Amino acid sequence: MNARLRKVQTWLRDKNLDAACLTTRANIFYLTQFDCDPHERLLALFVFPDLDPFLVCPQMETARVRQAGWSYPVIGYGDADNPWPMIEEQLSVLDKRSAPCIAVESDHLSFERAQSLQRCLPAQAQLINAEGLLQLRAVKDSDEIQVLEEAAALADYGIEAGIQALREGCTEMEIVAEIEYALKKKGVREMPFSTMVLFGEKTGDPHGTPGFRPLQRGDGVLFDLGVVHNGYCSDITRTVFFGEATEEMKKIYETVLKAQESALARCQPGVPIAEVDLAARRVIEEAGYGPYFPHRIGHGLGVEVHEYPSMHQNNNTLLQTGMTFTVEPGIYIPEIGGIRIEDDVVVSPGGPRLLTRFSKELRVVDAS
Amino acid sequence: MNARLRKVQTWLRDKNLDAACLTTRANIFYLTQFDCDPHERLLALFVFPDLDPFLVCPQMETARVRQAGWSYPVIGYGDADNPWPMIEEQLSVLDKRSAPCIAVESDHLSFERAQSLQRCLPAQAQLINAEGLLQLRAVKDSDEIQVLEEAAALADYGIEAGIQALREGCTEMEIVAEIEYALKKKGVREMPFSTMVLFGEKTGDPHGTPGFRPLQRGDGVLFDLGVVHNGYCSDITRTVFFGEATEEMKKIYETVLKAQESALARCQPGVPIAEVDLAARRVIEEAGYGPYFPHRIGHGLGVEVHEYPSMHQNNNTLLQTGMTFTVEPGIYIPEIGGIRIEDDVVVSPGGPRLLTRFSKELRVVDAS
Repeated sequence: MNARLRKVQTWLRDKNLDAACLTTRANIFYLTQFDCDPHERLLALFVFPDLDPFLVCPQMETARVRQAGWSYPVIGYGDADNPWPMIEEQLSVLDKRSAPCIAVESDHLSFERAQSLQRCLPAQAQLINAEGLLQLRAVKDSDEIQVLEEAAALADYGIEAGIQALREGCTEMEIVAEIEYALKKKGVREMPFSTMVLFGEKTGDPHGTPGFRPLQRGDGVLFDLGVVHNGYCSDITRTVFFGEATEEMKKIYETVLKAQESALARCQPGVPIAEVDLAARRVIEEAGYGPYFPHRIGHGLGVEVHEYPSMHQNNNTLLQTGMTFTVEPGIYIPEIGGIRIEDDVVVSPGGPRLLTRFSKELRVVDAS
Repeated sequence: MNARLRKVQTWLRDKNLDAACLTTRANIFYLTQFDCDPHERLLALFVFPDLDPFLVCPQMETARVRQAGWSYPVIGYGDADNPWPMIEEQLSVLDKRSAPCIAVESDHLSFERAQSLQRCLPAQAQLINAEGLLQLRAVKDSDEIQVLEEAAALADYGIEAGIQALREGCTEMEIVAEIEYALKKKGVREMPFSTMVLFGEKTGDPHGTPGFRPLQRGDGVLFDLGVVHNGYCSDITRTVFFGEATEEMKKIYETVLKAQESALARCQPGVPIAEVDLAARRVIEEAGYGPYFPHRIGHGLGVEVHEYPSMHQNNNTLLQTGMTFTVEPGIYIPEIGGIRIEDDVVVSPGGPRLLTRFSKELRVVDAS
């Protein structure tokens, strides 16, 4: 049994729980190395404190489960089968206790499946939130950090590919196409989210959508992109200027950069997460742009592009060595323009270590 | 109020329900025209039989909600806020009844959010599955079919782009890159699933993953791809041969094609869905390949790439005019190769109408 599964068993014993039923692609990959997007089909991993685990997956995936090295039982079911009676049979080992307690991923397991699971269990069984368990993933080991670093290098490469493709009159979608082409040619299979390229006033919307606006001299250009590489994600944002930049946008750029540097300086073991957010927020507020920074400073990053911990101003969790997340302050003036600068960071004993390394110096791309 | 929301109200009245709480991106887009991927954040639409609906979304999305034309109340919440107390306040209109009954998307709403919702409601409140409601989307109107047809034409274009890019020694991932580049240049923003390109023996795995296997003369090449276009999805599969094809693969190709034609012939109003699956399955079984067709014949297609109805052999739902879905039989011989042929279909009074139109004649691509 691998070390991660043993950690789950230890956690179950510590919490006096009878089983964990894990259902996210991310956690199942993390614990079994089996990576599968089951779409609407059920994928579930049952782990027990002292018994062998078992996996439930679509029949046609069972061969791949074995290829991934899984040697414990697998319940495969066809598209016309109901997997729950098979699960109930496997869970009969629990029947001896009158009120088993099962940890589930409450924020992912659907209400319907929670009800199906409850019907497989004694009437007094309780489903509790496996949140504490899920935090096991927050601290990365050195192998994981290595993969995240490779994913981040590909994100850096995507930014450069985007900048190189900028031409007066090109559209946002054309630049998206060029970036993803360059990344796929490098072997990237999957983007963790839709690549974002925004021009000019469209950068003033923190969640804008690329379209057909043509690039003009004087536009800001915001790139927000990432890759999935060997199961791990990267996520980077850079904003550059095409031909020239107004004094106001330069001032906003320098403010965001200063805010990010201030937040990064707080990425030390033992510092509450809230302080990372607030360090950036204070810089932006002091520059008079407080209302234009409408989101948290960042999010955990790993097997999922948004994972634990959420880097917001009310999160008092303390940073630990090996935690990886984004730091991405932004200022967005509607109808005018916005700046966001985002890096992927790992907390190290000596402070923050950046995984994304693309230059953050204010860059004006030659428009001639 | 738009006609779709009025249908939800009618359904609530017919079922004697007090509210619907809808939480999928797809249904919220369908009912409000507001399209948003909230990641892990809550997005919810509350509809009542006789009161105004309201929408819950991240604060930074509220402007976009208005742009989409939503004129009813919006509850926006920040990253550090808990939206449930705000929802509880809005739901106080329900308090007068002792046991309100709320329809929820049980297969999507998380167990945790179901519990949060229950805490906003009187103790005797019941959450029931809105499944019947969700089926409203299965029958498309002519505007939707028009958009699906445009999405399907882009999928056809993607197949041709893939075939044109084939060169001896190229890798699967290079062809994925070429296809997606061609589609993004056409303005496609999003793929509903990872574009699949498989060569040779890798086509023998129905859910294989593109990698770096080089293309060789005599390989089968399987393309499975789709696009999201104006909020609607397409999904096509074609299998061609590079340079030459073995007699066995030609026989398998003709069997799959005959199976698909047989299934398509059953796509008539009033026919049980099971018969569509079984029509293809019988052809494949009679040819001796029964064990090598391990999946259902298809899936509903619309705002989501996999939606209601599931086209499997135990589904006795009757087809109706305007239903859209895939028909995609396949035969997969492990380590040898596989064939799948998939089209997007709309049921019309006169029978099936194909939305994808790429030729299905056995094609041997020139390898010289």
